[in-house]
Amino acid sequence: MERVPGSFGTSVSFALRIFQLGFSSASLISMCVDYDFNEVTTFCYLVVVMAYVILWSILQTLADTYSVFMKQLPHKPRVLSIVLAGDVILSFLSLSGACGAASAIEMLLSIDAPMCGDNLCIKYYVSALLAFLCWALFLDSAIFNFMSLSSLFY
Amino acid sequence: MERVPGSFGTSVSFALRIFQLGFSSASLISMCVDYDFNEVTTFCYLVVVMAYVILWSILQTLADTYSVFMKQLPHKPRVLSIVLAGDVILSFLSLSGACGAASAIEMLLSIDAPMCGDNLCIKYYVSALLAFLCWALFLDSAIFNFMSLSSLFY
Repeated sequence: MERVPGSFGTSVSFALRIFQLGFSSASLISMCVDYDFNEVTTFCYLVVVMAYVILWSILQTLADTYSVFMKQLPHKPRVLSIVLAGDVILSFLSLSGACGAASAIEMLLSIDAPMCGDNLCIKYYVSALLAFLCWALFLDSAIFNFMSLSSLFY
Repeated sequence: MERVPGSFGTSVSFALRIFQLGFSSASLISMCVDYDFNEVTTFCYLVVVMAYVILWSILQTLADTYSVFMKQLPHKPRVLSIVLAGDVILSFLSLSGACGAASAIEMLLSIDAPMCGDNLCIKYYVSALLAFLCWALFLDSAIFNFMSLSSLFY
């Protein structure tokens, strides 16, 4: 059976995971610089979500690396379902974190908060933008894995 | 061919659309009471999204009503794809609107904003909660329609 490009264990999936890992790490670093983020609840939420995203991406990158370079892993419905569930849940968490952070930055700017003086809020903007990109990549992974899973059943 | 319960043109889909229409209307009304919402950009965004959700739900309710009570509409891939695309887009918009509004309310409460005095922000909370419920219902509709669409191809 041919594998859907981008599904678990393929080289496209490996590339997607590398980008997810890069964007989520950059988002976390951009948010955590200066330690001011813990004054706003939504920023803390985004940091927690990005930490989970990094953990998940590392796990998936290792599995894809093994599958691409060493020995191809079998496509089992149970494994694919777990990967799909993880991707869907993390895509929703990333989107909610990004939207929440963007909304909080908008509010901070509108009330001229001291933590946003001298264009300091630009790093929070960058963090929210990278979280949006993470969401888009997770959505791609989820769609590919769903196509792969449904091709197993029909 | 048997129809997937909950997909376009079935009675479960009709029930889902009625609930979507109810929750989105209640969210819009809860947000628009008193006209204070236009001071916050995210609240305006949620109002626009809920207006689109209401329009889409009315259209789908009419189509489902016709299909259930008058004459069953055919399951064509093109029609199902359009319905699925609409559901997915509106589910993401609802989630982003709900998260943005929830984050903005959190910020307003933390700075003791005058528009939140005397527990006035509770109506915005209710509005965001109803938008979350809309998201969950749209997700259900999207999943059912996707299953119905993929059953046409395999």
